[in-house]
Amino acid sequence: MSLTPPPAPFTADDYRARMARAAQSAADAGLAGLLVAPGPDLVYLTGYQPVLTERLTMLVLAAGQEPVLVVPKLEAPDAEHAAGAAALTLRDWTDGTDPYGVTAPLLDVAGRFGVSDNAWAMHLLGLQEKLPGTSYVALTQALPMLRAVKDAHELARLEAAGAAADEAYGEILKVPFAGRGETEVAADLASLLLQFGHSQVDFTVVGSGPNGANPHHEAGERTIEHGDMVVLDFGGLKHGYGSDTTRTVHVGEPTAEEQRVHDVVRAAQRAGCEAVRPGAACQDVDRAARAVIEEAGYGEYFIHRTGHGIGVTTHEPPYMIEGEEQPLVPGMCFSVEPGIYLPGRFGVRIEDIVTVTENGGRSFNNTAREMAIVD
Amino acid sequence: MSLTPPPAPFTADDYRARMARAAQSAADAGLAGLLVAPGPDLVYLTGYQPVLTERLTMLVLAAGQEPVLVVPKLEAPDAEHAAGAAALTLRDWTDGTDPYGVTAPLLDVAGRFGVSDNAWAMHLLGLQEKLPGTSYVALTQALPMLRAVKDAHELARLEAAGAAADEAYGEILKVPFAGRGETEVAADLASLLLQFGHSQVDFTVVGSGPNGANPHHEAGERTIEHGDMVVLDFGGLKHGYGSDTTRTVHVGEPTAEEQRVHDVVRAAQRAGCEAVRPGAACQDVDRAARAVIEEAGYGEYFIHRTGHGIGVTTHEPPYMIEGEEQPLVPGMCFSVEPGIYLPGRFGVRIEDIVTVTENGGRSFNNTAREMAIVD
Repeated sequence: MSLTPPPAPFTADDYRARMARAAQSAADAGLAGLLVAPGPDLVYLTGYQPVLTERLTMLVLAAGQEPVLVVPKLEAPDAEHAAGAAALTLRDWTDGTDPYGVTAPLLDVAGRFGVSDNAWAMHLLGLQEKLPGTSYVALTQALPMLRAVKDAHELARLEAAGAAADEAYGEILKVPFAGRGETEVAADLASLLLQFGHSQVDFTVVGSGPNGANPHHEAGERTIEHGDMVVLDFGGLKHGYGSDTTRTVHVGEPTAEEQRVHDVVRAAQRAGCEAVRPGAACQDVDRAARAVIEEAGYGEYFIHRTGHGIGVTTHEPPYMIEGEEQPLVPGMCFSVEPGIYLPGRFGVRIEDIVTVTENGGRSFNNTAREMAIVD
Repeated sequence: MSLTPPPAPFTADDYRARMARAAQSAADAGLAGLLVAPGPDLVYLTGYQPVLTERLTMLVLAAGQEPVLVVPKLEAPDAEHAAGAAALTLRDWTDGTDPYGVTAPLLDVAGRFGVSDNAWAMHLLGLQEKLPGTSYVALTQALPMLRAVKDAHELARLEAAGAAADEAYGEILKVPFAGRGETEVAADLASLLLQFGHSQVDFTVVGSGPNGANPHHEAGERTIEHGDMVVLDFGGLKHGYGSDTTRTVHVGEPTAEEQRVHDVVRAAQRAGCEAVRPGAACQDVDRAARAVIEEAGYGEYFIHRTGHGIGVTTHEPPYMIEGEEQPLVPGMCFSVEPGIYLPGRFGVRIEDIVTVTENGGRSFNNTAREMAIVD
């Protein structure tokens, strides 16, 4: 059991430093500022996580300017209680008034701004109409590394989330699989993640037999049978930071082909992890894993990228994908998760969260990667 | 207990008709088409509700053109299983390729398009860059009534959701309030909503004493005390359609002032409901409720609009707000929820979901609106 005390909360100073760094990064990238929408960017920069409504909430950051959070008046009391509120100024607007009119005076009328990927199109259109001289670029395109390099406190949280997911995996191997529905095993996984300290479960994939060949299958009505390969991919947030791990288990003894495919994925996953080091490109991790699968003749069945970043979300930049030349930097954290998917038959995926260290990589998931045999 | 059988699922024909009507509405509004993002618009038009990722999923609708759903290749198997999939064509794109390049050929290069409010800014920017001759308008601005007028099957679901919320309210009056935390009563409310057939709980506001004076307070650490006014605002989805109701109760006997404020809100809520009829403007409902509160001298303490639409979400157009001249049409469904919020002291709000009928309005919430006394 993970009964370690919760980490100390991030302080207003932590958020002030993050906002200052973000504003400086924007200036360095030639941007007039950043427009940050509710979601992971705002959580990361201010600790504020409003219940999402259609009303405009937007943090405006620019170098040499006090951070301003535009909020609906009736959400202002909640915003004032955010951990980072002391490091910014609130500017509220009332239902029936124009929120873009409140935001526009904070912006350079001819500026180019980075905007959160997930900002609502409605709000971007509102600003574009109000300030036709401005232009915009998605934040992960302009500053893909904004949240990517984790500090020591963040790494400790990600490591704890990974350890909790590992504990959940250890327990799920003890439950019966054959004769139960995928959704039942998924519910077990969710409850184990919560038991080991997660506050939020983002996904509990249980892909048995042919369902494992759909990499985005979650868990369905299918009853797991003896002889099934079963992909288990699960994660969520613990103390605000993510876990995400995959192991592929087998109900009873595998066939020679199943074992061979699993061995190939395991070798590919190890090759991907071994490619992690400062200065390597993201695409190098993808290439290293993919090469193993291609050499084994399964290249056409590895139909997704090798990995994605993780932090205050379970899915974010950087992406381990062909064409991504971003160099790896110590403190980055991401998944390495190659897979082989044989349509209508079965799938295999193995996934760990890895962080870049000064001289290589280190995994936050440390359960056995061999194909476990379950009942 | 609501043990009525679930309603028959919507069919591909239902979705085909909705998509055709939406495309025609777009053409009538002078738009080249609609770009529909994952979320309520896509659920309403196709029945498809992907797990939200940063990958582009977008339905392209245009009059005289087959509906096309652009999806990431690895989500295509899920999309194929959506209830509306038979009424559209899937076009997939693979990680590492340009999703806007796949979407652009479906669009008029000089067209003006309605785009889902909640489409990601990143995707809008991707399309704007790919097709600089296109222009865009938020869907609720261009076609605010797209989902607003419910058909008979939808009305039946909303009525059932309202009845379930009413049953939950009936039960919550029996639980102890004094001495328990707001979050405990909120958990009771959530569990009652689920017990009465909700699949999803969106909010369970328990605003006791001064917390009730913050209309967006959810439920906090505060222990409810004898003598507290308590705002209870709760809702979620049952069979895919929303409930949302508010009653304000009192722990023990109220003071004369508390009773007076509650009476004012009750009169305002009744006035708002009585203003509902075909042809009245949305703002007329707000004005009717607000006038009662203003006449009683509490105008400055009614700090939000009077209501919002409800359907596949618990919060959507049309909005009952000053300046909204949209005429009410039979089949529209929305909340009527005036309130008075006395900072640092207490708040009162009363809310029903009302549908516009041929000759007035009809409430889907029918529990007593008097201030209930709880223990």
